[in-house]
Amino acid sequence: MDYLADERKKAVFDVDSMKIVWAGSRQAFEVSDRISKLVAADPGFRKDDRPMLPRKELFRNTLRKAAYAWKRIIDLRLSEEEASRLRFYVDEIAYTDLHWGMFVPALKGQGTDEQQAKWLPLAYKMQIIGCYAQTELGHGSNVQGLETTATFDADKDEFVIHSPTLTSSKWWPGGLGKVSTHAVVYARLITDGKDHGVHGFIVQLRSLEDHTPLPGITVGDIGMKFGNGGYNTMDNGVLRFDHVRIPRNQMLMKVSQVTREGKYKQSDVPRQLVYGTMVFVRQQIVKDASCALSRAVCIATRYSAVRRQFGSQNGGSETQVIDYKTQQSRLFPLLASAYAFRFVGEWLEWLYKDVIQRLQANDFSTLPEAHACTAGLKSITTSITADGIEECRKLCGGHGYLCSSGLPELFAAYVPACTYEGDNTVLLLQVARFLMKTVSQLGSGKQPVGTTAYMGRLEHLMQSRCTAQRAEDWLKPSQVLEAFEARAAKMSVSCAQNLSKFSNPEEGFAELSADLVEAAVAHCQLIVVSKFIEKLQQDIPGEGVKQQLEALCGIYYLSLLHKHQGDFLATSYLTPKQAVLANDQLRALYAKVRPNAIALVDAFNYTDHYLGSILGRYDGNVYPKLYEAAWKEPLNESVVPDGYKEYIRPLLKQQLHSARL
Amino acid sequence: MDYLADERKKAVFDVDSMKIVWAGSRQAFEVSDRISKLVAADPGFRKDDRPMLPRKELFRNTLRKAAYAWKRIIDLRLSEEEASRLRFYVDEIAYTDLHWGMFVPALKGQGTDEQQAKWLPLAYKMQIIGCYAQTELGHGSNVQGLETTATFDADKDEFVIHSPTLTSSKWWPGGLGKVSTHAVVYARLITDGKDHGVHGFIVQLRSLEDHTPLPGITVGDIGMKFGNGGYNTMDNGVLRFDHVRIPRNQMLMKVSQVTREGKYKQSDVPRQLVYGTMVFVRQQIVKDASCALSRAVCIATRYSAVRRQFGSQNGGSETQVIDYKTQQSRLFPLLASAYAFRFVGEWLEWLYKDVIQRLQANDFSTLPEAHACTAGLKSITTSITADGIEECRKLCGGHGYLCSSGLPELFAAYVPACTYEGDNTVLLLQVARFLMKTVSQLGSGKQPVGTTAYMGRLEHLMQSRCTAQRAEDWLKPSQVLEAFEARAAKMSVSCAQNLSKFSNPEEGFAELSADLVEAAVAHCQLIVVSKFIEKLQQDIPGEGVKQQLEALCGIYYLSLLHKHQGDFLATSYLTPKQAVLANDQLRALYAKVRPNAIALVDAFNYTDHYLGSILGRYDGNVYPKLYEAAWKEPLNESVVPDGYKEYIRPLLKQQLHSARL
Ligand SMILES: Cc1cc2nc3c(=O)[nH]c(=O)nc-3n(C[C@H](O)[C@H](O)[C@H](O)COP(=O)(O)OP(=O)(O)OC[C@H]3O[C@@H](n4cnc5c(N)ncnc54)[C@H](O)[C@@H]3O)c2cc1C
Ligand SMILES: Cc1cc2nc3c(=O)[nH]c(=O)nc-3n(C[C@H](O)[C@H](O)[C@H](O)COP(=O)(O)OP(=O)(O)OC[C@H]3O[C@@H](n4cnc5c(N)ncnc54)[C@H](O)[C@@H]3O)c2cc1C
Repeated sequence: MDYLADERKKAVFDVDSMKIVWAGSRQAFEVSDRISKLVAADPGFRKDDRPMLPRKELFRNTLRKAAYAWKRIIDLRLSEEEASRLRFYVDEIAYTDLHWGMFVPALKGQGTDEQQAKWLPLAYKMQIIGCYAQTELGHGSNVQGLETTATFDADKDEFVIHSPTLTSSKWWPGGLGKVSTHAVVYARLITDGKDHGVHGFIVQLRSLEDHTPLPGITVGDIGMKFGNGGYNTMDNGVLRFDHVRIPRNQMLMKVSQVTREGKYKQSDVPRQLVYGTMVFVRQQIVKDASCALSRAVCIATRYSAVRRQFGSQNGGSETQVIDYKTQQSRLFPLLASAYAFRFVGEWLEWLYKDVIQRLQANDFSTLPEAHACTAGLKSITTSITADGIEECRKLCGGHGYLCSSGLPELFAAYVPACTYEGDNTVLLLQVARFLMKTVSQLGSGKQPVGTTAYMGRLEHLMQSRCTAQRAEDWLKPSQVLEAFEARAAKMSVSCAQNLSKFSNPEEGFAELSADLVEAAVAHCQLIVVSKFIEKLQQDIPGEGVKQQLEALCGIYYLSLLHKHQGDFLATSYLTPKQAVLANDQLRALYAKVRPNAIALVDAFNYTDHYLGSILGRYDGNVYPKLYEAAWKEPLNESVVPDGYKEYIRPLLKQQLHSARL
Repeated sequence: MDYLADERKKAVFDVDSMKIVWAGSRQAFEVSDRISKLVAADPGFRKDDRPMLPRKELFRNTLRKAAYAWKRIIDLRLSEEEASRLRFYVDEIAYTDLHWGMFVPALKGQGTDEQQAKWLPLAYKMQIIGCYAQTELGHGSNVQGLETTATFDADKDEFVIHSPTLTSSKWWPGGLGKVSTHAVVYARLITDGKDHGVHGFIVQLRSLEDHTPLPGITVGDIGMKFGNGGYNTMDNGVLRFDHVRIPRNQMLMKVSQVTREGKYKQSDVPRQLVYGTMVFVRQQIVKDASCALSRAVCIATRYSAVRRQFGSQNGGSETQVIDYKTQQSRLFPLLASAYAFRFVGEWLEWLYKDVIQRLQANDFSTLPEAHACTAGLKSITTSITADGIEECRKLCGGHGYLCSSGLPELFAAYVPACTYEGDNTVLLLQVARFLMKTVSQLGSGKQPVGTTAYMGRLEHLMQSRCTAQRAEDWLKPSQVLEAFEARAAKMSVSCAQNLSKFSNPEEGFAELSADLVEAAVAHCQLIVVSKFIEKLQQDIPGEGVKQQLEALCGIYYLSLLHKHQGDFLATSYLTPKQAVLANDQLRALYAKVRPNAIALVDAFNYTDHYLGSILGRYDGNVYPKLYEAAWKEPLNESVVPDGYKEYIRPLLKQQLHSARL
């Protein structure tokens, strides 16, 4: 029985068409749909016991699933796209994520053709398993500060990899602790006593015969991380080198090289290529943000329609909590954000391809902007997603706190995205630096491009004032874009002006960094808003689909406007009255989305397996399933708990004096 | 060696005096200090393995610790205060929390003298263990909607307790699942077919001989909750009744009674007493918020002084991350909030005592205000604390994500405080209702009292404008109070005006509820600010102590002003220019607090045992201890992981076809 059938009937748009919009294309939808069902139907991929397993069992089980997934990929001859979808829907963080997501790309991005020819086939067949060993106990954000050394020994034509201090121990790399046979290790290159900074090296860590660590290598797992299940399926590791030798040709030499004679030189391949890889990884993180957030929103939305509390009149049923405006004002902006992040992610994918094409044609002009853009979007989308998952959990009241809601694990597994691949604050400071540079160059006649093009209209933006007179005026894209542009521009300019008061610009930057971060956020939010609006200018088929997306877009920007009202008012672009109109319009949009809410989360097309949440079940059959699930708790194996005789009975019977405690 | 010694030398105030301010009195400090050291020194209370234990072991261990703590309390003949401090420092959520925190207070608050005389001695000696069984699978916030029934059977002079539906199953009560022998059960009282609403009943659940559930009772644990360790030491339970009979005298009859003949009647004890208990429980939660937040802040502050990243010049050491303004702007407002919550908690304790005295003198006049006040303060302090703990974790970069940082467990164990004892949104709506009532009565000449007294100066507040002209003007308490009063008053009034446009007030309240919640938050923040300022008007001994508290108070209100700038600007109390001045002053205060930061968290006087964090160690010796701790991870018991032969080797050797997966 479908307890949400009535809700589904309320929708005034075509869900199947929306599914295709969400997936990106019909083809992408079909692959996702097929693979997700295949995974859901396979008992080999069950995951409902995950939060209950102690670490060792949990990890062993992940090893099994990773091998089983690989076997399925081979047996079914899945394409690369299908294989990656399969790993996605298996939804278990594993060493394979780093192997495919970081080790292989590092080989491709930094290895010479020769190195690629040697190592990639091994990696593609998983005859070796690799990880990405950059971070150390003492250094993460500051990559240039890494301490591990790779000293060239010209006599033997080898590098000696060494961990000179405790803080130089590699610490965090995923897949390193227990599984990887190889690693790309980042270390300071030293030739002839000269330090050339940090470079990558391919280092074998474990015997391919019996998996024991090679001589000179100490390796292990760094221990439990946040939450049940979650990231604990991953063997984030610690690694120390005691003068480990590798042949010279295991330095990744695409960009710079060490010759047989020990001479250090740059190749003619541009260094900027490295940034291309960063753009790639970060655009992927933005896409992942929309997945994680949509998943949480799907759970909270369905449960909010099932859950009833208060408001029963004459013995009728109570109010669904999704009908409370407070619930809507917390939930719907997150629903809108999930869609917004999806579309900005699509655009970033295009941007990445564009950058790569240009790099290949030796055009580096758009790279700084693309870099700032992905850094900033990585930061704001992951921060909102992490907070958003927790908000969705709270929206589920007490039951959200149970592991069976799926939300605790989703949160715990997601939050490190705010830290890895660039700490979010550090990234926003990079964006701010880029913005200040852009502003400072405005006078020089250099026209800002791409996402900073609006800065070219600075004079207009500094003077313009909002013209909205009625709530509906806030539905005009041009009005909204100008508001966000004016806000972002004014915040950047104001920072630049304040910076110019300092004689030492670096000191100024440090002193004003909190304001600079806010300016960077304003800039990044503008990007997301403008890409959502651009998306809506495309042709979008399906009955009512575009109208729903317009409503969501409105909720996205109006809720941002409300949350950051201070910025908009401080720059005098808006009057308080106009802010009130915006808020009125926002409420009207909540009412518009409400009957479509369930269908809007159905459009994500998530299986119950993938969601992994009793509260988010497609059929809304929450209570009986929660009740059933409780009895699977190991503590319920016996009615009288283990420890009763030793610790409860003596207490009740006042016999603690003789108890062994 | 003390790696933070230099930091400690920088402080310009007397830490020992601050410790006494934090503790509340010299006596309170001495008890806390003594008991916390006693707990820390006792290996029976070790907790560092907690995140690694599977549920059954974890729970068994909690049973042991609870019994051992009780034994120590008896053996050492601890006073009530000392015993409660001991449970606090043992820092392990357990059934005893509910026994002492809810079961005993429910008996006291709702039992007749006779009932108290019978049950309290048993509870005090723990000859029975009790829990508080209110929430059901289908109803939490809406207590009046509970479905469990207690039907009076006049023939046998008994109540029949029954669970008529699946959703009427009791669900969540702590200590219920595996331990409690008794419960205060909330059920609909039915006499002669008439439903009198929800009342409390003492029900025995388990045999005192062998701990098996009594006939008609189905009871168990509801399963894993958020995080490792944390709340999983508690047996939150499920409970169903199949026509369980209890004698009539086990209905809690202080306020209303059922006679031998089955007549339902009110006693002459005022119903309002029940609210007194709620005020008590919630003021305790506010105090707990300051503890949890200060603990997280202590960890993040110490680690931020140890952690260095970037900025090394000429091979010198790198910048301590606490010196980055972005770090300060995220951390110091939380440090200030911890102090702010402490002081408002102290004041609430006074308020509770005052209310009780008045109730005993039949004066109910201040009850609604006290009730709104504690509800609102419970809501805002727990929300900020939950988010603040997670922010502190992020401030620790990657290492914050390890369980050994202590922050994941602190977060997971803390977050339900936003939900239990009143969902935070539901509570703010109650505050909003109270505020609307207060505004509507202003015309009637009824003078608002206590924390709403400022509403009496509405006309003045609506017209007044901020006079600040220099950054330093924001250090004037009167200036600040007026700003927060004007903001809160204007927001309430604006809501009231908008409400008056609706013909149906309830519909209006529902439609505008998101704005109403914001008005409630503004009111509650004003309370915290004003109580902090009042505290500083007292005599505070100790060199430099008052100056530090003044700086913290400034950080508290100026960071709020910055965060909610939109409110202040929208009400036209401030000009954008004045908001900038406030922000400049805020930065100046960060600089003032920076050298004192470590000493300010030392003042919490937490032992390393209580903090339970390698990153937060008093001596700052972080890296060697992190490294050591990793090797205790169970996965590191063998170098080659369990599962290698089955799942890794066949994959590497391309032999998955024949593997059993
Ligand atoms: C789950 C997980 C998986 C990971 N996987 C890998 C992996 O596979 N391989 C790998 O090599 N690494 C991995 N890492 C490590 C990760 O990349 C680092 O943790 C990350 O780069 C952050 O660095 P940090 O930990 O040194 O943080 P820190 O830089 O120490 O951050 C601490 C605080 O200092 C602040 N801060 C730092 N610098 C500045 C500055 N210049 N200005 C202002 N504020 C500053 C930060 O904002 C933060 O608040 C992983 C980490 C996690 C948590
Ligand atoms: C760790 C933990 C321990 C607990 N211990 C106990 C215990 O010992 N004994 C006991 O009896 N119970 C206990 N509880 C239960 C707890 O008291 C309830 O979970 C709490 O009261 C919230 O109720 P709910 O779960 O029904 O949330 P719901 O009310 O279902 O909340 C769901 C959503 O609906 C919204 N909502 C609900 N009503 C309204 C409204 N009128 N207007 C607007 N929005 C609304 C909420 O804001 C929330 O976003 C515990 C819970 C937890 C998590």
